[in-house]
Amino acid sequence: MAAAAVVSNGDYAAVKTPSTGRFAAGYSEVQNSRLDHSLPLPSVLKSSLKVVDGPPSSAAGNPDEIAKLFPCLYGQPSVNLVPGDSAGELAPKALKIGVVLSGGQAPGGHNVISGIFDYLQDRCKGSTLYGFRGGPAGIMKGKYVVLTPEFIYPYRNQGGFDMICSGRDKIETPEQFKQAADTAVKLDLDGLVVIGGDDSNTNACLLAENFRSKNLKTRVIGCPKTIDGDLKSKEVPTSFGFDTACKIYAEMIGNVMVDARSTGKYYHFVRLMGRAASHITLECALQTHPNVTLIGEEVAAKKQTLKNVTDYIADVICKRAELGYNYGVILIPEGLIDFIPEVQQLIAELNEILAHDVVDEAGIWKKKLTPQSLELFDLLPQAIQEQLMLERDPHGNVQVAKIETEKMLIQMVETELEARKQASAYKGQFKGQSHFFGYEGRCGLPSNFDATYCNALGYAAGVLLHSGKTGLISSVGNLAAPVAEWTVGGTALTSLMDVERRHGKFKPVIKKAMVELEGAPFKKYVSLREEWALKNLYINPGPIQFVGPTADKVNHTLLLELGYQE
Amino acid sequence: MAAAAVVSNGDYAAVKTPSTGRFAAGYSEVQNSRLDHSLPLPSVLKSSLKVVDGPPSSAAGNPDEIAKLFPCLYGQPSVNLVPGDSAGELAPKALKIGVVLSGGQAPGGHNVISGIFDYLQDRCKGSTLYGFRGGPAGIMKGKYVVLTPEFIYPYRNQGGFDMICSGRDKIETPEQFKQAADTAVKLDLDGLVVIGGDDSNTNACLLAENFRSKNLKTRVIGCPKTIDGDLKSKEVPTSFGFDTACKIYAEMIGNVMVDARSTGKYYHFVRLMGRAASHITLECALQTHPNVTLIGEEVAAKKQTLKNVTDYIADVICKRAELGYNYGVILIPEGLIDFIPEVQQLIAELNEILAHDVVDEAGIWKKKLTPQSLELFDLLPQAIQEQLMLERDPHGNVQVAKIETEKMLIQMVETELEARKQASAYKGQFKGQSHFFGYEGRCGLPSNFDATYCNALGYAAGVLLHSGKTGLISSVGNLAAPVAEWTVGGTALTSLMDVERRHGKFKPVIKKAMVELEGAPFKKYVSLREEWALKNLYINPGPIQFVGPTADKVNHTLLLELGYQE
Repeated sequence: MAAAAVVSNGDYAAVKTPSTGRFAAGYSEVQNSRLDHSLPLPSVLKSSLKVVDGPPSSAAGNPDEIAKLFPCLYGQPSVNLVPGDSAGELAPKALKIGVVLSGGQAPGGHNVISGIFDYLQDRCKGSTLYGFRGGPAGIMKGKYVVLTPEFIYPYRNQGGFDMICSGRDKIETPEQFKQAADTAVKLDLDGLVVIGGDDSNTNACLLAENFRSKNLKTRVIGCPKTIDGDLKSKEVPTSFGFDTACKIYAEMIGNVMVDARSTGKYYHFVRLMGRAASHITLECALQTHPNVTLIGEEVAAKKQTLKNVTDYIADVICKRAELGYNYGVILIPEGLIDFIPEVQQLIAELNEILAHDVVDEAGIWKKKLTPQSLELFDLLPQAIQEQLMLERDPHGNVQVAKIETEKMLIQMVETELEARKQASAYKGQFKGQSHFFGYEGRCGLPSNFDATYCNALGYAAGVLLHSGKTGLISSVGNLAAPVAEWTVGGTALTSLMDVERRHGKFKPVIKKAMVELEGAPFKKYVSLREEWALKNLYINPGPIQFVGPTADKVNHTLLLELGYQE
Repeated sequence: MAAAAVVSNGDYAAVKTPSTGRFAAGYSEVQNSRLDHSLPLPSVLKSSLKVVDGPPSSAAGNPDEIAKLFPCLYGQPSVNLVPGDSAGELAPKALKIGVVLSGGQAPGGHNVISGIFDYLQDRCKGSTLYGFRGGPAGIMKGKYVVLTPEFIYPYRNQGGFDMICSGRDKIETPEQFKQAADTAVKLDLDGLVVIGGDDSNTNACLLAENFRSKNLKTRVIGCPKTIDGDLKSKEVPTSFGFDTACKIYAEMIGNVMVDARSTGKYYHFVRLMGRAASHITLECALQTHPNVTLIGEEVAAKKQTLKNVTDYIADVICKRAELGYNYGVILIPEGLIDFIPEVQQLIAELNEILAHDVVDEAGIWKKKLTPQSLELFDLLPQAIQEQLMLERDPHGNVQVAKIETEKMLIQMVETELEARKQASAYKGQFKGQSHFFGYEGRCGLPSNFDATYCNALGYAAGVLLHSGKTGLISSVGNLAAPVAEWTVGGTALTSLMDVERRHGKFKPVIKKAMVELEGAPFKKYVSLREEWALKNLYINPGPIQFVGPTADKVNHTLLLELGYQE
């Protein structure tokens, strides 16, 4: 490694000295302190190893359809890495590997890349690692950078995806597959690592199938990324980024809780990222003990209406007022209203009406709504009504994502409490404060857990490609144990798939892992929520620590799902 | 200290063991780890010391009026603590001291209290410390708790004001002074420590004057608190809480910056707490290097209009678009629009009109606005117009605090960029994301600096009361040096005061310390802002660390104001 080098990627145009781990400019002390943080590897990755095939695999559902969609790959075994003698070891050889980041940011992405890189340096001398820029589009357009020690160094243990950036394009049409294949051939790629969520890993498997069907030598391995925590299975216990993002949100929630208790006069409504599943909200609740937590999956399972949700919150507020508490903290998953059937129905009707009718000031258009939807519409605060009418996407559809659910709930709760006050059923004071924690958590410096986990995922992806595997997702398990004991392998992506019918065709999907209402994290929350609602058992997790006795703690969700009782 | 005790304050109804520093429940690992964090004291506080009077003091302005307002206290010297021999030492005696938290939360408040407590334990055996509950109202109503080791322990180095809570009541009428005196007499108080901002310290001095004029023995000492950083002077280099709050906001800003650079498609508009002065925004800028930073004091000094501000932001965005950057981060102080004269004028006119006239749908009422105000009103986005018209306080006045400045600016910039696009002067894509960081920072776990500084402030307040001083503010200086070398004293509160004329009467005020346009922090920012605007020199400070090499760093503002070139 050079003693000093000018980093060539524009954003870090600072003279750095890898040997001391210090930048002349551009990094904070904490960023600098992370550069040389050494990452423990699972024991199996530290010495001679061999790749052991498991039994033939099936699919998560509809195996016959998955078999048709993946004729080359379906049924292939998942694999485990186990200690081997040096005789059975993979022969060192120079590989050409590409890596791509796909979709939204999650803390630890850079460490997956450095993990792959380190594996190649350690075991496959003379290899080349290409970083495709800007996500899958970078593969299709052949936009890449050769990753060198100097290029990678400043991103070690740093948050963000800015080393090579990400993108949301997909490789799915025959033309796009051809572009990807052209790049793979042109660069003579032995392998490609796709770092992404459920969709991206599905597409990684389609690409692996496509390459295999064309007899290309390029293998494709996926890595599980998403702060939302909804890409997981028995073999892949968690997606990276979830741990860090939840800890960052929980830090903020904990601070707001102490503020609420100190001030004694605000209800803080905190919306948290996580459009599909409510894992983030649940984990943050387990970390901080809020007074109310809404879990989308529960709302859906109980077929709750917006009025039910409002009443639930108002009930807790009324009970707390009787105890003398006119403050509290309420957690709301970003995707809440997607879980409420009546809201979906209203939005569908609005889309239909607004596409064809003129909205008159007098409100005659409203007569086209079904009675239930009209009732719901009239229940909504005026600002939300306007948002529904005015904020349209380019196709003229209501933009559900733009609705500030936390503000909507504050207004609805306020109205409900006012009515109860009139009926002498509530005597407290209610003041709502809204928060949305999202972007703050996607690019934080990865926690020690995410940093180490990602490094292992990347290192394992290197092994899998080295051993000629394709269509697997890098899988690191036994995560509650010391890192030395973590298990490492690759899971057949087809084994995680089911099909969905879209536009009359079967599409393969890795089903999003939703919050299980029978799962240990949710059950733990349910067992405690009544106490949390009325007592003030707030916990302030504080800022993520990178050194010291608290630095290596793993999130509750993972521990509970792995069977640990806390 | 008892080996185990049930903590009696309701919110921490957990069995704790002071000897091990662990709670059975209710605290996070990081909170627990902070309980036994030991705080270094300035050397002068660690051994025999004496209190040395300085020369007679004057006032910050209008000394004759201040002398009239404070006939007993005006002119009294500030004092320094210096090493003394044991002969000249203060005689140990049991004291009865009260302490009160006044105004908004700031990290470190609990440590001021534990600092006072520890002084009494160390040097005044047999003393009693009363914590007045809920702010100054607690003094007037005689609502207090006796602070014991067991009561205080769980709050050591913890954020929030929840140990005794705070309040915004003021002691200012003769009746209120009498109530306070009654409590002081009833509890036989030797002293009272008022922990608060500029107003609270002014009131502390009025109370000291009042007690002295009544020949009560109760002395009053102030402590400088506010995250806004606008209570400071030569003798009081910073208010506590500023360091921690800025670091928490900067952590979030840094994360958002990395996200902006990784995603490449959003402009994040971040509003930061600080209604009067823009210190927080300036400090966060120095920590993170955003593309645009608005400093209220500069906007006011340059008599900028809202259009000027919008154009400035739009100019940066256009230049960045030419460089290929369609993303960025913009920091906005909460009080921005209070600094724009034309906005103040518009609001004054609106208040007048809305108090007397009916607002007609057709907008004829608008004709009552002056032409400039009408022009400005029409320039505002519709949502902001509505906010101005609809959100009124109980007196019917426009609620400036409710205006979401960051959203207003996003809309105004969007409109301006659209116009430039029509004129072919801008070809980029603009998407704004709004953030408000406020409550997240007021109750975080105090940084090592704030924890240590507050402890010293409290300990010093103990010395000052022990030595019979009154009307001083606890003053700890030389803060860039190692803690051992910090200076300790008390500054005559009257020396910090000027008068303002309110309702035809002179009122004493400690003037808020605004951002000095000739001060080192602002000049440093000005020297760098053009580079920050166009290049991406973002710095991600990361989460506050409590241990390790980065844990003891002090904020830029303080270092620069103390003359350190960084």
